[in-house]
Amino acid sequence: MTAPAPAADPTGVFAAVLTPLHDDLAPDHELFARHCRWLLAHGCDGLSILGTTGEANLFSREERIEILDRLVGAGIPAASLIPGTGCCSIPETVALSRHATGRGVAGVLVLPSFYYKGVSDDGLFAAFSEVIERVADARLRVYLYHFPQMTSVPLSRDLIGRLIARYPGTVAGMKDSSGDTAAMIETAAAFPGFRVFAGSDESLLPLLRGGGVGCITAVSNVAAELGAKVLAAHRTGEAKAADTVQARLSAVRRAIAAYPLSAGLKEIMAGHSGVESWRNIRPPLMRLAAAEAAALASALDRLAFAPPPLA
Amino acid sequence: MTAPAPAADPTGVFAAVLTPLHDDLAPDHELFARHCRWLLAHGCDGLSILGTTGEANLFSREERIEILDRLVGAGIPAASLIPGTGCCSIPETVALSRHATGRGVAGVLVLPSFYYKGVSDDGLFAAFSEVIERVADARLRVYLYHFPQMTSVPLSRDLIGRLIARYPGTVAGMKDSSGDTAAMIETAAAFPGFRVFAGSDESLLPLLRGGGVGCITAVSNVAAELGAKVLAAHRTGEAKAADTVQARLSAVRRAIAAYPLSAGLKEIMAGHSGVESWRNIRPPLMRLAAAEAAALASALDRLAFAPPPLA
Repeated sequence: MTAPAPAADPTGVFAAVLTPLHDDLAPDHELFARHCRWLLAHGCDGLSILGTTGEANLFSREERIEILDRLVGAGIPAASLIPGTGCCSIPETVALSRHATGRGVAGVLVLPSFYYKGVSDDGLFAAFSEVIERVADARLRVYLYHFPQMTSVPLSRDLIGRLIARYPGTVAGMKDSSGDTAAMIETAAAFPGFRVFAGSDESLLPLLRGGGVGCITAVSNVAAELGAKVLAAHRTGEAKAADTVQARLSAVRRAIAAYPLSAGLKEIMAGHSGVESWRNIRPPLMRLAAAEAAALASALDRLAFAPPPLA
Repeated sequence: MTAPAPAADPTGVFAAVLTPLHDDLAPDHELFARHCRWLLAHGCDGLSILGTTGEANLFSREERIEILDRLVGAGIPAASLIPGTGCCSIPETVALSRHATGRGVAGVLVLPSFYYKGVSDDGLFAAFSEVIERVADARLRVYLYHFPQMTSVPLSRDLIGRLIARYPGTVAGMKDSSGDTAAMIETAAAFPGFRVFAGSDESLLPLLRGGGVGCITAVSNVAAELGAKVLAAHRTGEAKAADTVQARLSAVRRAIAAYPLSAGLKEIMAGHSGVESWRNIRPPLMRLAAAEAAALASALDRLAFAPPPLA
């Protein structure tokens, strides 16, 4: 397959992109491409599709491959993408990572094998090693996905260091969704050149100041322009302006995160677009109840927050 | 496809069968069939393949399908099998459950979708409903797999009751690996006809006395004859004999469960058979270290325990 080398190192604000669904719960590829195009036009430097927010682990491998293929086919640059590819099983993680890498993505976001709990660092090292060596593609760029609240399989700093040392360049960065900003900064400091993205909006500015490269967040599906303003003010040294926008971004995030994130964000997009099918979500996730949806809308009204205009 | 109707309701001692691997980590179908035949000849009433102990979630869907097909092809009766088919995604759980049901298995053991945490009973009910309705096969027999320590997604008694009420006959039973014997007994009492299997050997006799139908356990890979003796003594009303064998079974279980179960049991089978490849295991699981293996062997020696002879 002829595919470009990985894009320049990814940086900045990435949405953990929602996956819109038809009423029969099949992916709505057309709406997905439209949403992605809108995100790239409104503050996103790149897109992390098929992560936790994108309901990735509720799709089959074939569905995940088709979602990526059709998105790239619709004109979204593969080099702007960091799709999630981490499954419980090595063969499935290898298949998804190899496919995405072959399409020219900027990197792949890889959960640890997350069924078995209490596994050792040696076991996790062996599992990531098997994935990297079986993909066997020099273009592979692995972003480790640390989300202990969801996986119950934390990635220790020692493990991260061992993987970077063994696969320099390939183990390129991480998304840290632990919410522990101090730990993210310590990881960035410990491994120069290792690209640490915050998994939660509140950590964006502190992590940028502490050596991180950006964020990959659910709330960027509707508020990436705020993240982009934080990033711009940080880069131009306007510390006070950066603090102000970060405070607003954090307030918006808190309002949304009072509800399950995928359901809440789909509710916001449904209200914003008038497209009812935006509320479709795969079980065991559930759409917001009407009262929750109303309370979320009120909370965002009180913050005078709305997503950017569509189209 | 012409397949028999589900077998008579499964009862008794089921092994949560280990999956032997070649050195390249591919399933060793021949050794697997031999192991299954040996288990059925030495105390097992049936076999729950591709569960937690069997490293199921470390295999791809295709591997899981081939493992079942080749086992049945090798002459192991499908009606003796309750394979695990629960994945994170509905389409994958549907594919595995439909395939296994079509092959004539006694039932399928279905984990809840286990990536997302903190999901509601409504969400889990919707997910199980989607699976059952999409499989759309009257022969389907679902055994709910409750293993909160591994999934962090518990199945509440209320949810179980709702599923039984909505899908009577189809939602046929459960494997309860919580270790909470009192809760298992309460579940068996709450839902007459619902077939509750203990997921841990210590619960076997108390659960039989409390209305359960048997056990599905890892330790039955090496000690099913003890479970079978418990069952026989219970059935013939020899309470004291049942207690005595149960105490021995529990002691053997405690010695083995001091180590990760799949690795410890593979170590025992390697030592017992002289087949070194028995120690192969998929990362992130790891084989026992030499010192652990020696300590486990000593502990079993002190109990004067050994698996039955290999044919």
